[in-house]
Amino acid sequence: MAWDTERTRRLLLDAAAAEFSAHGLAGARVDRIAAEAGVNKERIYSYFGNKERLFGAVIEDRLAAVMDAVPIEGSGIPALADYAGRLFDYHDAHPELARLTVWEGLEGGVPAAEEARSAACERKVVRLREAIPELDEEAAREVLLTVVTLCDGYPALSNLDRLYFGAVAATASRAPRRRAAIVATVTALATALVAAC
Amino acid sequence: MAWDTERTRRLLLDAAAAEFSAHGLAGARVDRIAAEAGVNKERIYSYFGNKERLFGAVIEDRLAAVMDAVPIEGSGIPALADYAGRLFDYHDAHPELARLTVWEGLEGGVPAAEEARSAACERKVVRLREAIPELDEEAAREVLLTVVTLCDGYPALSNLDRLYFGAVAATASRAPRRRAAIVATVTALATALVAAC
Repeated sequence: MAWDTERTRRLLLDAAAAEFSAHGLAGARVDRIAAEAGVNKERIYSYFGNKERLFGAVIEDRLAAVMDAVPIEGSGIPALADYAGRLFDYHDAHPELARLTVWEGLEGGVPAAEEARSAACERKVVRLREAIPELDEEAAREVLLTVVTLCDGYPALSNLDRLYFGAVAATASRAPRRRAAIVATVTALATALVAAC
Repeated sequence: MAWDTERTRRLLLDAAAAEFSAHGLAGARVDRIAAEAGVNKERIYSYFGNKERLFGAVIEDRLAAVMDAVPIEGSGIPALADYAGRLFDYHDAHPELARLTVWEGLEGGVPAAEEARSAACERKVVRLREAIPELDEEAAREVLLTVVTLCDGYPALSNLDRLYFGAVAATASRAPRRRAAIVATVTALATALVAAC
């Protein structure tokens, strides 16, 4: 029974992630999520309450996945550069979380599942300051916000990439170049911040 | 007559900018735009063709406004830093274009009014390379894409700001700090790129 519950929950979260990623919160349809998951629609309400809370559960689930998959490893500025590059790769390969985050920014701006997500950001700030102790807390927060904005921006804002790079933006050849540009940006920023200490 | 046409067009563009900024392309309603502008709905179709082309006209109009209001002035790295700061201020004060751009990224990714907007980006690339001749063309494009992503990201992704900075994110005190962080990022990047030449 518990296994069945967990499996149903997983089916619903995955179907909801795809639906919210494609259509945002306002445009998503609970009917489509239920149909895609092959689960009765009433289960969504009994498991998650309503569409808004389902959105929060999806974004929390996807955030936990990226936090597990892409930790900050090692120390010093190369650790930050390496993290930014791997975060870029992750969002490029799995654009759902970036798209969910950007939809949320447009559709309201108040974070769903705020407590859990703020706590995750907090852990990242602490970890970055372990890696680069010269960064004060505010600088660490700004650096991480910049990394996340740039890494989320690549899959979510392909229109901007295409305006600056033309049709090549739609090809696989752009990702490694944009990745390198973001890594160079973060490295230069951290180098300047540490040098100013 | 020409004056009346121009005035009606302006009323429609402004009402449409507000509607698309709030709801995106899919969520926008031509009825609401017409009502807000105080103009018969049929005029929208006769002036702009359809909702998609109206979206393109709005984004082209708003892009022309920011290009006029925020030129790259002077030369050297300080010119880029100054441009990034003024672009941040502009998008913070007039979030419509940032929101329209981000909606477009989510809703399709192919730029509306692509020819005019690509040409505007092209002029910006040329102008940046006049200001900082050490930047090769690809580097100039990447730098501008980074500046625009970060400056658009501030008004469009207040959720991310709030996750890293808490409730202060909603207050006026955040903008000057985020502005300074973006200017520092761009300055550090350009300094590193020029030093590597």
